[in-house]
Amino acid sequence: MIVSGSSIAMNTLLGESMKIADVQVIRFSVEAEDYGTKWGYGQRGPKRRVPRGLIKITTDDGESGFDTQYGWDGYYEPPSVEETENIIKPLLVGEDPRNIEKLWQWMMAHRGFSETTIGSIDCALWDLMGKLANSPTYQVLGGARDKVKAYASTYPNLGNPDVYAEHAKEAVARGYKAFKVHAYIFWDPINDCPAPGKPAFPKQDIEVCESVRAAVGNDIVLMLDPWSVYTYQESLMVGRQLEKLDYYWLEHPMDERRMEPYKQLTKELDINIMGPEMEPGSFYTRANWAF
Amino acid sequence: MIVSGSSIAMNTLLGESMKIADVQVIRFSVEAEDYGTKWGYGQRGPKRRVPRGLIKITTDDGESGFDTQYGWDGYYEPPSVEETENIIKPLLVGEDPRNIEKLWQWMMAHRGFSETTIGSIDCALWDLMGKLANSPTYQVLGGARDKVKAYASTYPNLGNPDVYAEHAKEAVARGYKAFKVHAYIFWDPINDCPAPGKPAFPKQDIEVCESVRAAVGNDIVLMLDPWSVYTYQESLMVGRQLEKLDYYWLEHPMDERRMEPYKQLTKELDINIMGPEMEPGSFYTRANWAF
Repeated sequence: MIVSGSSIAMNTLLGESMKIADVQVIRFSVEAEDYGTKWGYGQRGPKRRVPRGLIKITTDDGESGFDTQYGWDGYYEPPSVEETENIIKPLLVGEDPRNIEKLWQWMMAHRGFSETTIGSIDCALWDLMGKLANSPTYQVLGGARDKVKAYASTYPNLGNPDVYAEHAKEAVARGYKAFKVHAYIFWDPINDCPAPGKPAFPKQDIEVCESVRAAVGNDIVLMLDPWSVYTYQESLMVGRQLEKLDYYWLEHPMDERRMEPYKQLTKELDINIMGPEMEPGSFYTRANWAF
Repeated sequence: MIVSGSSIAMNTLLGESMKIADVQVIRFSVEAEDYGTKWGYGQRGPKRRVPRGLIKITTDDGESGFDTQYGWDGYYEPPSVEETENIIKPLLVGEDPRNIEKLWQWMMAHRGFSETTIGSIDCALWDLMGKLANSPTYQVLGGARDKVKAYASTYPNLGNPDVYAEHAKEAVARGYKAFKVHAYIFWDPINDCPAPGKPAFPKQDIEVCESVRAAVGNDIVLMLDPWSVYTYQESLMVGRQLEKLDYYWLEHPMDERRMEPYKQLTKELDINIMGPEMEPGSFYTRANWAF
């Protein structure tokens, strides 16, 4: 498509007008093994088909940009037909899709757009920009490198520590140099059944972490993500143990709606604390967290 | 229903079990005059029917608690059928509805509940508790007073300053001692058409505020709510003018995703700054704002 791409790039260069003609949410389903427990997050189960969504933004030139929306048992759902027709399209259709910053500001000022929807539309517009520039989007954004490090990770509630150890060894055998543990989250490992997030099971989580470190040796980078279920005291206790096990980070151990406990935790611990993940507020919130 | 109420109160006293048997979202429509512009918020228009929702929680004893959910053109929507069946009912059905704090913590820890849904369920459970106690809910929560002060308020984008002045005089004639202005929000008062929130029209907003003060005299409490469309400089300028006009508060003038500009503004101004209104995070965020 280099010819088409070049021709569009030339139009862009010439400042020709371009308008968003349509926004569609393409729904489809995929095979997945994750199930939510009634208290949240998930557990692994038999394969089944679950709904997913894809946002497609089309211009009057027939160009398009895409973004996938994560869909997970009612979490982070793609926009509904009503949202798309009543809120998204009235704002976007007729606008120049290259004014990405302006459209982002409009969406952020509008109460009808969720942050996940704004993120998807933003990504679809950048995908379109990459096509207009006949370039990978990462270069349109100012390419600095074309590789990133990857780590393997786990479902939560995989089983006993041996199951995690086996999984980590398989990941290392496949070439991974780093591995992140999701241990017992919304799950009671003693009675092996779903449970509320609090009380959590930090001691059992540490047993998993110990088992994984013993299985992969000292050269593999390891992380733990307890998905915000710990109290402050539990976070401190687990953090100290992870330091002894030479883990690389402890990921958002506590509820992110309170920042002060995180400030205190980072003072007390040497291990990296990763966060925020789920706190809304886009980069405004992230700026507050950059301590 | 005093007999029924007393009998249930007695059961409660005896520690008898009680379970949530069902959660329903009752959908209905009302006549409304508010329309969203494509950039958000609203304008007044011809009456039409719009959807609303009501949450009903029913116990195995047949008792029930209710809460209305504000529904406004796709903003703050009541939970969908899917959300109710897949996320809300699995968590709540079978639980004792009197454990309101426990259920609130569970909902807050669960990614599938929006804060508006949590708030509605919480209110419905407290409504039910009032019925169990055969008492108004405000007394179950620890009654301190049975009256609160009320103020009249306006649609945004009502018209020119004279329209606002006339509206304020009508409110005063009906006995209101306080009046809050929503001036030009997502609206261009010069060309009289919808507009993005930024650039805002603070000078025109002040003209409305001046007109209202002149119309009602000095004994009426007045407030301005620009609904977060101002920059910091605009907020400072409008705040200074409102101080001269003896306005009582300036309500969340800026985007609430950044708190530092609010800290600075409250240092610079004497007028009360009201906020946050829209920032998520429940009382955790509110605690951060209590400066």
